[in-house]
Amino acid sequence: MSDKKMVEQITSMDVDFAQWYTDICLKADLIDYSSVKGCMIIRPYGYAIWENIQRILDTRFKELGHENVYMPMFIPESLLNKEKDHVEGFAPEVAWVTHGGSEKLTERLCVRPTSETLFCEHYQHIIRSYRDLPKLYNQWCSVVRWEKTTRPFLRSREFLWQEGHTMHATAEEARAETVQMLNVYADFHEQDLAIPVVKGAKTPSDKFAGAEDTYAIEALMHDGKALQAATSHYFGDGFARAFDITYSDKNNQLVHPFQTSWGCTTRMIGGIIMTHGDENGLVLPPAVAPIQAVVIPVAAHKPGVIEAATDIADRIKAVGVRVKLDDSDNSPGWKYAEYEMKGVPLRIEIGPRDLEAGQCVIVTRHNREKTIVALADLEKAVAEKLQAVRDGMYAKALANREARTYDCKTIDEINEKLTAGDGFVRAMWCGDEACEDKVKEETGVGSRCVPLEQETISDVCVCCGRPAKQLVFWGKAY
Amino acid sequence: MSDKKMVEQITSMDVDFAQWYTDICLKADLIDYSSVKGCMIIRPYGYAIWENIQRILDTRFKELGHENVYMPMFIPESLLNKEKDHVEGFAPEVAWVTHGGSEKLTERLCVRPTSETLFCEHYQHIIRSYRDLPKLYNQWCSVVRWEKTTRPFLRSREFLWQEGHTMHATAEEARAETVQMLNVYADFHEQDLAIPVVKGAKTPSDKFAGAEDTYAIEALMHDGKALQAATSHYFGDGFARAFDITYSDKNNQLVHPFQTSWGCTTRMIGGIIMTHGDENGLVLPPAVAPIQAVVIPVAAHKPGVIEAATDIADRIKAVGVRVKLDDSDNSPGWKYAEYEMKGVPLRIEIGPRDLEAGQCVIVTRHNREKTIVALADLEKAVAEKLQAVRDGMYAKALANREARTYDCKTIDEINEKLTAGDGFVRAMWCGDEACEDKVKEETGVGSRCVPLEQETISDVCVCCGRPAKQLVFWGKAY
Repeated sequence: MSDKKMVEQITSMDVDFAQWYTDICLKADLIDYSSVKGCMIIRPYGYAIWENIQRILDTRFKELGHENVYMPMFIPESLLNKEKDHVEGFAPEVAWVTHGGSEKLTERLCVRPTSETLFCEHYQHIIRSYRDLPKLYNQWCSVVRWEKTTRPFLRSREFLWQEGHTMHATAEEARAETVQMLNVYADFHEQDLAIPVVKGAKTPSDKFAGAEDTYAIEALMHDGKALQAATSHYFGDGFARAFDITYSDKNNQLVHPFQTSWGCTTRMIGGIIMTHGDENGLVLPPAVAPIQAVVIPVAAHKPGVIEAATDIADRIKAVGVRVKLDDSDNSPGWKYAEYEMKGVPLRIEIGPRDLEAGQCVIVTRHNREKTIVALADLEKAVAEKLQAVRDGMYAKALANREARTYDCKTIDEINEKLTAGDGFVRAMWCGDEACEDKVKEETGVGSRCVPLEQETISDVCVCCGRPAKQLVFWGKAY
Repeated sequence: MSDKKMVEQITSMDVDFAQWYTDICLKADLIDYSSVKGCMIIRPYGYAIWENIQRILDTRFKELGHENVYMPMFIPESLLNKEKDHVEGFAPEVAWVTHGGSEKLTERLCVRPTSETLFCEHYQHIIRSYRDLPKLYNQWCSVVRWEKTTRPFLRSREFLWQEGHTMHATAEEARAETVQMLNVYADFHEQDLAIPVVKGAKTPSDKFAGAEDTYAIEALMHDGKALQAATSHYFGDGFARAFDITYSDKNNQLVHPFQTSWGCTTRMIGGIIMTHGDENGLVLPPAVAPIQAVVIPVAAHKPGVIEAATDIADRIKAVGVRVKLDDSDNSPGWKYAEYEMKGVPLRIEIGPRDLEAGQCVIVTRHNREKTIVALADLEKAVAEKLQAVRDGMYAKALANREARTYDCKTIDEINEKLTAGDGFVRAMWCGDEACEDKVKEETGVGSRCVPLEQETISDVCVCCGRPAKQLVFWGKAY
């Protein structure tokens, strides 16, 4: 809103991290609330981040041979009930449609919490032969889970996501797809969102309803809590059996195909806020920032300044940078604060003295570093800065994670380390669910994942002292 | 499915137009049915058409300053009830969510049939000053209307659409937006979909629930029935008053802003099928065809043929054409039929003799015209052919519409002309709703729109003989 006189203050993250988070969501114009409890309005600036996320991921999915489809948003109760584990996992948290117009429906429909059942029904219909495999489908849509406690982006009753659902001739191929898509998510987070992640498997107690294996990427937020940022599931042929999906293999035998699903959501925007944000507001990674550079004329009334600022904006727009020229009446100081709040990666200032010297000033949002750049080198400097911002943001986030990651050999050690604040605990585990529960009970941290990159930091389980099987990342989770 | 031995036949459109339509939807792999009654699965080939539609329209919307947002999919009953006409129009056909998990909700939520009420609530929250105007928002989402009789794309309980919702300082500006967006839709249909349309206003009895004026574009299908292809509404300040939306104008007076909404849906895919399709299947306009050209090697086992076909595909892909090389084992004859069914605009054949002569053959789908093209001129020839296909498809559709548009001065004349088959009737109207009803009752055709381009073809009303006010397009509607 252009008539506000000063940029509003946000709560300090050290004082109240949750309030700091909500303040950014609202004051960076990402979301608004409505009378629809537990749901959020994603405003233009927030939605533009999501559109950039979609564009990047959708391109990668398609490069890997995936095709987009659209399934109905409703699932008949009988269809949801077809896979036992699945319905047990989801039924308690779905929204039920019971009436159409003035008539009561003969069968309740739930609003999809996820679409495995619909994809399976369709696959049952269209898969006949090994020639029909693999089927590599993806869907961008919204889903509903009737959560009791909600927070913008992190947990809301409706959220936007993509859900990939694939069918393969062999278990090996399906397993490879599961891991491939986990890697796509991990690369996207590290390269594009500048968020370091741990790739790992969920423990059996924490798997997706109906899955044989669930993989996830886990990131550590500013406050030391873990965020599950995306998941990828291997289903074996469990759903295929429940839905009677078969195909004729090369020997003309009827067999079941093997299945995966994988998804990521608007929750990632919450991850960006809590990984990179600071006391001045949002800090956006350049790859998904709606505005990558804002050009601000200083002493705009002086001859040539507006023209020079316009020229800068035009030049970097021409090389594909998402740029905004702010030539409004607001003061430069107001503008600096406003675009810091909005997390714009680069601010380019130009005033009369710069003009005389044939230069401009580039300020990087994440570290407020100022660089004087010759106008002749503008395009090159902006490209280099955008890369440097991504690298700097990643390094900062990684350093934060490392400073808050504790290797522990005993439960006492966990409790001692965590007095310094929440974080990732790396500790060995025997594989027994009872130990998993006990660690959580006695320390407050639950198993986040069994990292794919294993290491032996002790020979015995952190809990029971029996021989250890796996290194596990533990943490408090969003 | 690559193992089918022959392309399945479809019903002739002369025998059973409705079945012909459904056959194309299914056999061109656009949709599938599911156990969710009244909803459809949009398969990859159908969804890719929608993605192309989205990309083109979204770019135009943004060029005109519109921003995308995302509103909740649910509307509390009390919010839907806020604007009297609106709720009367929509309440009979909404789906109601009554339970979340195992708990009964204290207030029913409907699944959005359209989002005016949610946008208004948000605008009430964020609009304060004339500086906040205009607000030019758009949303891509799915909506639900509990229809009794459904048909793929044309009328289904859930469909995909975009809904623009804008707020303006003055009535003039809002009216200009309404007409501007109508023109965007009309241009998109004529240029990109090759569908000629009539731009007009709906008569008062046919307006959108809550609108002051509703504009639409109307197209004529193969069978002589009319399809409303997109609408644009002017609301005046009616919703603004109902939702208490005010802003301070330049004189610091609190006044209401003026509002529009405009939308188009997956129904347009039905319009493409019924405007351009023929006895061999779908015919797609190049702008939205998932595959614009298919390259088919003939006698593919002969030396150099596959390499030449690959080279052709690579070359036209390099200039931005969506191309597929089909080097599968299926016979060329099977492939010809398959890609005709799928409506691919250009088929490029290359065999040993073509290779020797340094040429290929381009066949245009809509008229099966064959052209021999020197390989040296490939890129230029493909670009020209794609434009010629759009132009040819448009001319054909326009000729069909003109052949089926009847100027009539009396009700008897309407009945007489329509014995030759359904079509558009152009006839004068006095503006009285009773006459509108009587025309429909006695001839079967209802008013489709009052065209923006007016003409006087008679001085008196087609029904009552009193002085005529307007030329009206009449027709049977989908």
